[in-house]
Amino acid sequence: MTMENFFSFTIMQYDIVAHVLTLWYAVMLAALFYFAMTMYQVLPKYRISSVLSVVVMVSAFLILYTQANSWINNFTFDPVTNMYVKNPDTLFTNGYRYLNWLIDVPTLLLQMTFVVTLTAAVAWKARIWFVISGCLMILTGYVGQFYEMADDRMWFWIWFVVSCAFFVHVYYLVYQVITGAKQDKRIDEKGRKILSTIWYIFLFAWMLYPIAYLMPVIMNTADGVVIRQILFTIADVTAKVIYWVLLSQLAFMLSRSEGYDYNAIKKKA
Amino acid sequence: MTMENFFSFTIMQYDIVAHVLTLWYAVMLAALFYFAMTMYQVLPKYRISSVLSVVVMVSAFLILYTQANSWINNFTFDPVTNMYVKNPDTLFTNGYRYLNWLIDVPTLLLQMTFVVTLTAAVAWKARIWFVISGCLMILTGYVGQFYEMADDRMWFWIWFVVSCAFFVHVYYLVYQVITGAKQDKRIDEKGRKILSTIWYIFLFAWMLYPIAYLMPVIMNTADGVVIRQILFTIADVTAKVIYWVLLSQLAFMLSRSEGYDYNAIKKKA
Repeated sequence: MTMENFFSFTIMQYDIVAHVLTLWYAVMLAALFYFAMTMYQVLPKYRISSVLSVVVMVSAFLILYTQANSWINNFTFDPVTNMYVKNPDTLFTNGYRYLNWLIDVPTLLLQMTFVVTLTAAVAWKARIWFVISGCLMILTGYVGQFYEMADDRMWFWIWFVVSCAFFVHVYYLVYQVITGAKQDKRIDEKGRKILSTIWYIFLFAWMLYPIAYLMPVIMNTADGVVIRQILFTIADVTAKVIYWVLLSQLAFMLSRSEGYDYNAIKKKA
Repeated sequence: MTMENFFSFTIMQYDIVAHVLTLWYAVMLAALFYFAMTMYQVLPKYRISSVLSVVVMVSAFLILYTQANSWINNFTFDPVTNMYVKNPDTLFTNGYRYLNWLIDVPTLLLQMTFVVTLTAAVAWKARIWFVISGCLMILTGYVGQFYEMADDRMWFWIWFVVSCAFFVHVYYLVYQVITGAKQDKRIDEKGRKILSTIWYIFLFAWMLYPIAYLMPVIMNTADGVVIRQILFTIADVTAKVIYWVLLSQLAFMLSRSEGYDYNAIKKKA
C-alpha cells in the first residue's frame, strides 16, 4: 500500500496534486504533437529520435491520465473536517508510473544513440545494456515500492539497493555515450555545450526519482505526498520533454553540417 | 463465467494485473504512432505492412483499454481483509480479447504475405487459408472459454481441441510461407536470419495463448489469474509489436536492395 493512502489532505494539498497531474498529462499530449510536427526539420536518419519521443509521449500521456484519475477517485471531500479523506474501498497506486517507465526509459536511452555518432560496436553495446539495465532498474524499483509502508521495510530497502545498482550502471553508460559523442569531428563548440547540458539535465532529472521513491522514509506526511507527486512530474518533464528539445537541437545542427537546412528550403517557382 | 471471478486478490496481485493491462494498451497506442511515423522508410509496395500493423494496434488498443477497465471495475478494496474482492453485481470477461483477435490474427498473418516474396498462386492460397483457419481458431476458442469453469468441462475441452486443430494448421501455413520466402534470391544471410527469428518469435508467442487458455486447469488460483493476464500481454506484445519490428527490418532491407535507402536521402538546400 503506497503512502498516499495513509493521509487526509487539505483542499490545497489535494488540489495541487490533482492540478499538477492534470497539467503534466496535458504537457505530454502537447509535446507529442510538437515532436511529430517538427520531425521533418532534420535529416531522415535523425527522425527516429522524434518518432521515439512520440512513443514516449503517448505512453506518458496515457499513464499520467490514469494516474491523475487514480488520485481523483481515491478521495472524497468531507464537509465536516474540510479535508479530502480516502475512500474506504479504493487505493491509490503509483505503479502505473513504474510500468510506464518500462516503455520510456529504454526508449529515451536508445534515442540518444541514434543522434550522436558512435562506432557501430559501441552503439550496439550501449543499446543492449541500456535496455537490460534500464528495465531491471525499473522492475526492481516497482517490486520494492509495494513494500514502502510495510511494518518491516527490509524488502523495500533490498529492492531499492538492487535498483540503485542498475541506476548507477545507466548513469555510467550515458556518461560514456556522451563523452564518446563529443569526439565527433562534426560537432563544434556549441554542439559540445548541448551535449554537456544533456548530461547535466540527465544527472538532475533522474536523481529526483530515487528521492521521490524514498519519500515515505524522508517525509512521511501529507506534505510529503504532495512533494513526491511534484518531484515525479518535474523529473518526467525534464527527462522527457527538455531532453528531446536538446537532442533535436543537436540533430538539427548535425543535419545542417551535412547539407540539410530545413529553414533554407525554398521551392522554385 | 471466467476464472477471474472466483477469487479475491491481494493488493499486489490486483495491482500487477491493473498495471500490466494499462501498460499494454499504452504500448499498443505508442506502437501505433511508431508504425505510422516510420512508414516511409520503405518502398511504397511494403508500406501496406505498416498500415496493417496500425490497424492491429487500433483494435488492440481499444480492446485492451476495455479489458483493463473490466478488471478495475470488477473488484473493490475491502479494508477489513486488505484484499480486493469481486463486486457482487459485475463480472470480468476475457471475451474482449478474443473478438479483438478476430481482427488481429488474419491481419497479422496477411501482413507477412505482403513483405515476403511468394508466387501469386502460393500467396493467394496462403491468404485465403490464413483468414479461414485464423478466424475459426479464434471463434471456436471463444466459444470454449465460456465453459472454462463449468462443473463438467466437456465443452471446454471439445472446443479447445477443435481450436487447436486450426492452430496447428496456421502454424503449418506460416512455416510454409517462411520457408518459401527464404528461397527469394534478394534475401541474403541476414535476411534469412530475420525470417528464422520471425518463425521462432511466432512459435514462442502464439504458444503462450493455449497455455493462458488452459490456466483454469493448470493453476486454478489467484496467482494463476495474475500469470494468465501476464501471459496474454507478453504474447500480445511479442506477436504484434516485435513481429512488426522484424517484418519492417526485412522490408527496409529489401527496399535498400531495390535502391531505396531512406536514411541516405539528403535534400539540397
